[in-house]
Amino acid sequence: MPGDTVSDMHHVVVVGAGFGGLETTYRLAGAPVRITVIDRRNHHLFQPLLYQVATASLATSEIAWPIRHLLRRRSEVTTLLATVEGVDKQARCVFLDDGSTVSYDTLVLATGARHAYFGHDDWEPFAPGLKTLEDATTIRRRILTAFEQAEREKDQARRAALLTFVIIGAGPTGVELAGAIAELARSTLPKDFRNIDTRKARVVLIEAGPRVLGGYPQQLSIYAQKSLERLGVEVELGQPVSDCTADGVVYAGRKLAASTIIWAAGVQASPAAIWLDVASDRAGRVKVEPDLTVAGHPEIFVIGDTAAVADPDGNPVPGIAPAAKQQGQYVAGAIRARLRGERPISPFRYKHAGSLATIGKRLAVIDFGWIRLRGAIAWWIWGLAHIYFLIGVRNRLSVALTWLWTYTRDQRSSRLITQGKVADK
Amino acid sequence: MPGDTVSDMHHVVVVGAGFGGLETTYRLAGAPVRITVIDRRNHHLFQPLLYQVATASLATSEIAWPIRHLLRRRSEVTTLLATVEGVDKQARCVFLDDGSTVSYDTLVLATGARHAYFGHDDWEPFAPGLKTLEDATTIRRRILTAFEQAEREKDQARRAALLTFVIIGAGPTGVELAGAIAELARSTLPKDFRNIDTRKARVVLIEAGPRVLGGYPQQLSIYAQKSLERLGVEVELGQPVSDCTADGVVYAGRKLAASTIIWAAGVQASPAAIWLDVASDRAGRVKVEPDLTVAGHPEIFVIGDTAAVADPDGNPVPGIAPAAKQQGQYVAGAIRARLRGERPISPFRYKHAGSLATIGKRLAVIDFGWIRLRGAIAWWIWGLAHIYFLIGVRNRLSVALTWLWTYTRDQRSSRLITQGKVADK
Repeated sequence: MPGDTVSDMHHVVVVGAGFGGLETTYRLAGAPVRITVIDRRNHHLFQPLLYQVATASLATSEIAWPIRHLLRRRSEVTTLLATVEGVDKQARCVFLDDGSTVSYDTLVLATGARHAYFGHDDWEPFAPGLKTLEDATTIRRRILTAFEQAEREKDQARRAALLTFVIIGAGPTGVELAGAIAELARSTLPKDFRNIDTRKARVVLIEAGPRVLGGYPQQLSIYAQKSLERLGVEVELGQPVSDCTADGVVYAGRKLAASTIIWAAGVQASPAAIWLDVASDRAGRVKVEPDLTVAGHPEIFVIGDTAAVADPDGNPVPGIAPAAKQQGQYVAGAIRARLRGERPISPFRYKHAGSLATIGKRLAVIDFGWIRLRGAIAWWIWGLAHIYFLIGVRNRLSVALTWLWTYTRDQRSSRLITQGKVADK
Repeated sequence: MPGDTVSDMHHVVVVGAGFGGLETTYRLAGAPVRITVIDRRNHHLFQPLLYQVATASLATSEIAWPIRHLLRRRSEVTTLLATVEGVDKQARCVFLDDGSTVSYDTLVLATGARHAYFGHDDWEPFAPGLKTLEDATTIRRRILTAFEQAEREKDQARRAALLTFVIIGAGPTGVELAGAIAELARSTLPKDFRNIDTRKARVVLIEAGPRVLGGYPQQLSIYAQKSLERLGVEVELGQPVSDCTADGVVYAGRKLAASTIIWAAGVQASPAAIWLDVASDRAGRVKVEPDLTVAGHPEIFVIGDTAAVADPDGNPVPGIAPAAKQQGQYVAGAIRARLRGERPISPFRYKHAGSLATIGKRLAVIDFGWIRLRGAIAWWIWGLAHIYFLIGVRNRLSVALTWLWTYTRDQRSSRLITQGKVADK
């Protein structure tokens, strides 16, 4: 394996090229190390905009880029498309899916999280979650196909079920999906159909907790809920879902017939804790030391959504891109410091820049801590911030053009049903 | 069914929203008819650029648009996402996949063609063809995954097989694919890999006939072959393939180990002839009357790739977009004339505007009949013609921007491996 090439250079193996792993690699530029980046996908994914692929606004290629292309100018970096299946802490190597191993001097696990069903994995076929490009095109296919089938359906009850869209979980992803589906039904689609009024589609956002955007200040939660309701979204709070089937969901003791259900209610960390055989929290995240290493193994760092980290006030660091990036930057600095012989290094300190969530056109909420914004101003800041953060000038331009088009014409450029048959469910 | 709504208006049912079916519908604007457009896909596909999706230059949404969106301003047009499974000529209705029927006064079958393996359907898993968006993302995944696996492969023979790309059939699609893969390997990818030299990838174009672009003037065929060879493509002429397997192809009595094989050697018409129980040619195309109707059924038109039509000189009309569009325009005119009480109508006359094929950057051939062009000038005309023909201003702009980026930077924006696992083959 390339990772096993004999070399005296300190070898850093980064598993996962999400925000954390990529930032670690970027920040190690010029350091006296060689790096192997391993990911089971060939692309880095800008997950915060995945809901826009799921709701037909953006194309998959507008939010994803080949990892090896992002790292092409770094001759000391080797990129491997491979799935890691385990770690040998003693031998200092990772096991790949083809049976080969890659040995490391320093290991950085940035393997992210998947959506989780809290013991109800049987719900997954009926209520897909949103973490990968395939998840997004699957959800997009189901949403668009539901409208198509409703156009052909003569039975009133079945037509109503086809035009009912349920989103479970009212965190940022659930709120963004609910708002985007409501806008799709009310602004984009009405003129395209002859037998149904897409504006009458029901979008139901079900949340077990007492409010939407549970992690945000209460006044922003209230604003977000009112904005959603103005878009036509039905918000059901304090309602845990007790069953999901092909026909709909059960909550509050009653059944809601719905052909499209989307899961946005929770995540489970990657199996990094199992690979390492170390303690994890309930979401499966590795309990790391203050310097993001594994206890007793200073050569192993765990960062991003798969690490349980506390901020200086003792609150858990949220599973968002800026947090993963800060950890990646910290780890790169720690590796550099150690190679210079400096230890101990000061612990990781998370700085929360702000919480952003968009609800719909000219509707967003931002909590910067020192100031809270909502409505059109928050929406414009949200848009500019995301364009700014998108990697690579071209995609920034492309996404900006696509959004300008969507904004001015209420059109959506990626309304393609692919990867499946109409009948599949 | 919506198509069965009681109405005195003459009902035209158009099956298939490719170039022929869509043109028929467009050209019937303002005519005293109501129209039902039925397609089993939700999108119209610009097939001439499909090879650019397969070779990672364009995104799927840049060459496909929702049919009902294209027809949204035509209130007399109903679009149905449905698969037609048969036609009852006597009862004048078509059967849909859900068991329902749609009756017609005039039927236009524009159901296209699929790639065909001439009795070797068992080759399909190893040598996919290129007709749909899924075909294109499948081929894209295989090409990109082959490079990824080669980067990890230590065995020289297996690595060579992974870096061998075979295209069977040297018509326009085969030539375009071969040129695009050669450019991908030689211009786009070299800097991204560490363990392989992608420029050494073999691209082998195998053709049973005596020359590439068999339907073109000989001098353009010779030019195209030389251009391909300059790009590094190995052109094998007069070599029918005798077997395709997971390991490679057999031709000229020897086996070529290759992990990626693409089929561009032939097409088979849709089952329209079977639905109608009428005579067809060897490719399954309906033998139509000079006015594109079915013998004895002046109310049924068959057009595009699923119709066998001769031009004024007795040569078969080629299966290309301009031919399908001309037939669509003719059928719309014929329907209007009949509704005015005019008959008989003059027979369809095909006008060949020209043959275009692109080989690579600044390399294309055009045969206008009165003039033959090749090289950079032909390539620029090819590009402008395709941008012009792309439906809708936005996509024209988007494709133009994407091409400008690809042209100036040798980058490709859609290098995403999706819809499958690395191991799938």
